Amino acid sequence: MTPNLPDSQRQIIYAKRPQGVPTVDCFRLIDVPVARPGPGKVLVRNDVLSVDPYIRMRMEEKDSYAPVMAIGDVLVGRTVGQVLESHADGFAEGDWVVGRLGWQDYSVAGPGELQKIDVSLAPQTAYLGALGSTGITAWVGLMAFGKPKAGETVLVSAASGAVGSVVGQIAKLKGCRAVGIAGGASKCALVKDAYGFDDCVDYKSPDFADALARAVPDGVDVYFDNVGGPILDAVLPLLNNFARIPLCGLVSQYNETEPYRVKNLREIFNRRVTMRGFVLSDHRDLWPEATRELIAAYAGGHLKYRETIAEGLENAPQAFIDMLAGANVGKQLVRLRRA
Amino acid sequence: MTPNLPDSQRQIIYAKRPQGVPTVDCFRLIDVPVARPGPGKVLVRNDVLSVDPYIRMRMEEKDSYAPVMAIGDVLVGRTVGQVLESHADGFAEGDWVVGRLGWQDYSVAGPGELQKIDVSLAPQTAYLGALGSTGITAWVGLMAFGKPKAGETVLVSAASGAVGSVVGQIAKLKGCRAVGIAGGASKCALVKDAYGFDDCVDYKSPDFADALARAVPDGVDVYFDNVGGPILDAVLPLLNNFARIPLCGLVSQYNETEPYRVKNLREIFNRRVTMRGFVLSDHRDLWPEATRELIAAYAGGHLKYRETIAEGLENAPQAFIDMLAGANVGKQLVRLRRA
Repeated sequence: MTPNLPDSQRQIIYAKRPQGVPTVDCFRLIDVPVARPGPGKVLVRNDVLSVDPYIRMRMEEKDSYAPVMAIGDVLVGRTVGQVLESHADGFAEGDWVVGRLGWQDYSVAGPGELQKIDVSLAPQTAYLGALGSTGITAWVGLMAFGKPKAGETVLVSAASGAVGSVVGQIAKLKGCRAVGIAGGASKCALVKDAYGFDDCVDYKSPDFADALARAVPDGVDVYFDNVGGPILDAVLPLLNNFARIPLCGLVSQYNETEPYRVKNLREIFNRRVTMRGFVLSDHRDLWPEATRELIAAYAGGHLKYRETIAEGLENAPQAFIDMLAGANVGKQLVRLRRA
Repeated sequence: MTPNLPDSQRQIIYAKRPQGVPTVDCFRLIDVPVARPGPGKVLVRNDVLSVDPYIRMRMEEKDSYAPVMAIGDVLVGRTVGQVLESHADGFAEGDWVVGRLGWQDYSVAGPGELQKIDVSLAPQTAYLGALGSTGITAWVGLMAFGKPKAGETVLVSAASGAVGSVVGQIAKLKGCRAVGIAGGASKCALVKDAYGFDDCVDYKSPDFADALARAVPDGVDVYFDNVGGPILDAVLPLLNNFARIPLCGLVSQYNETEPYRVKNLREIFNRRVTMRGFVLSDHRDLWPEATRELIAAYAGGHLKYRETIAEGLENAPQAFIDMLAGANVGKQLVRLRRA
């Protein structure tokens, strides 16, 4: 038996489908008994929760790439935490793990749902971000579908975000020119100064289209797209022949009830472009290589990241809503337990 | 010296840029002296001319995938003809050849611009269509970018057209379900009865979207797109996970001054689709394999084609305009010389 384990724990469940932008009443904080791990299972104390744009899609009524959540489900989300009690081979009390364990204080999980992490190499929270699924998403999209060659120009939307910032840093390590697109002067400064991109263009600027063209004087060979919508339309005419577009997300579209209609799709044909939607969970075979390269980059000082940390599970809904609106800097996390 | 060669020949030159749909005054028929082949060159008598949608893009003011034509240029187009006089190694008087020799009665060309054809295997005109660049376009797009697997569903727009009809027949040879989209009941009947598609849907029908969904009960694995525009929007929600879209052309868009705005692009992400624009001239390495397979299919009775033949170079502009409007059945050709 685990010492000091409370009888009950907090969970946030899905209470109401949003119309457009989610509101806090789409979520409900409840108390439930702490589950006990049976044979082959592990009890994990979740210390930090990651809230990510893909969760918005799981709130839709219609399946996107993943099944939607039902009303009453515990909100999906990845956490980092510590094993309190193990009845599974390969896991011991005290091990640090990450997994998709949901918006709750404690979780029971099987070994297949957990990855052990080495907290001597980097802080725990890095494994939710630059060294975790966020960084791996960046690596897989860029390397497997962007296929950058040294000397090429890699353009990234949402460049100050958790995925985008890693994309640009890998692109630099591969010898490319990295150019970001971000919203506002301070995010653009972060992209250039903290993450080392060669340039960054503010999409909120009135001369965005011209500024973007100036920032990619040799055209765009890889456009790593996190947002879709009008920014995609602005990029399409700047693509070089045989450009690649790894389509990682459509953040600009998740809260829209009417989708943006893309005007310049003919450039896909004219420039013989490859556009490829991808989702990390389809590419587990690439995780080990991606993780090795990301940890090596971090150890070498070539992989910087930022975090915005909200305090308390009860504040996770607002943190999620703010993140969708772009209020966070870097990875948006929620601390569930004070150290 | 070639016997019976006239002093002058007819050419059609590019006279005026169209706004939207081209009109006959965009073209001008002129008489010019017949050029004489110098050392290393060949004189070809052009018997049949092929008029194709891509020519419309070359009439634009702005380069698409190929350089635009200048006012005064001879119209671009492929012909089949016979060598009248050769000063080039590997070519002899009487050889049958195809090449991009333009809208004119006679052409002087180098060996690199000509392919010899075997007229004992198929009629001359087949080498402008199903056994020529049209058929090779279908093969390259489907096999290199569509990557069909037996049992999958291959959907083709402009299915009664010269490219689309070949796509469906190759798909059938590869063990796929082939479904076409075409305009009108008679074209749909042709697609099913002459080309052997499993089904064909009329995009002019008022219940097009429902009929299309019924025709692909297992979803769409490959969408070979020749048209873009609203038909692409109708297909996107029917794609299966990991579907491929070889984008061969945008016929619906060539005459539009304002491009159609695509609404359902998020399905590229949701379904992890690969959309790939391609142009035949980038893939000359695949021509030999494509040609071998097409000739074998034709010899085996598995590759049917239709032709619409206009008579006389002077009627080529109207034939081209009618072809863009979909008035042709199969490959649109123009006979320059009566046999």
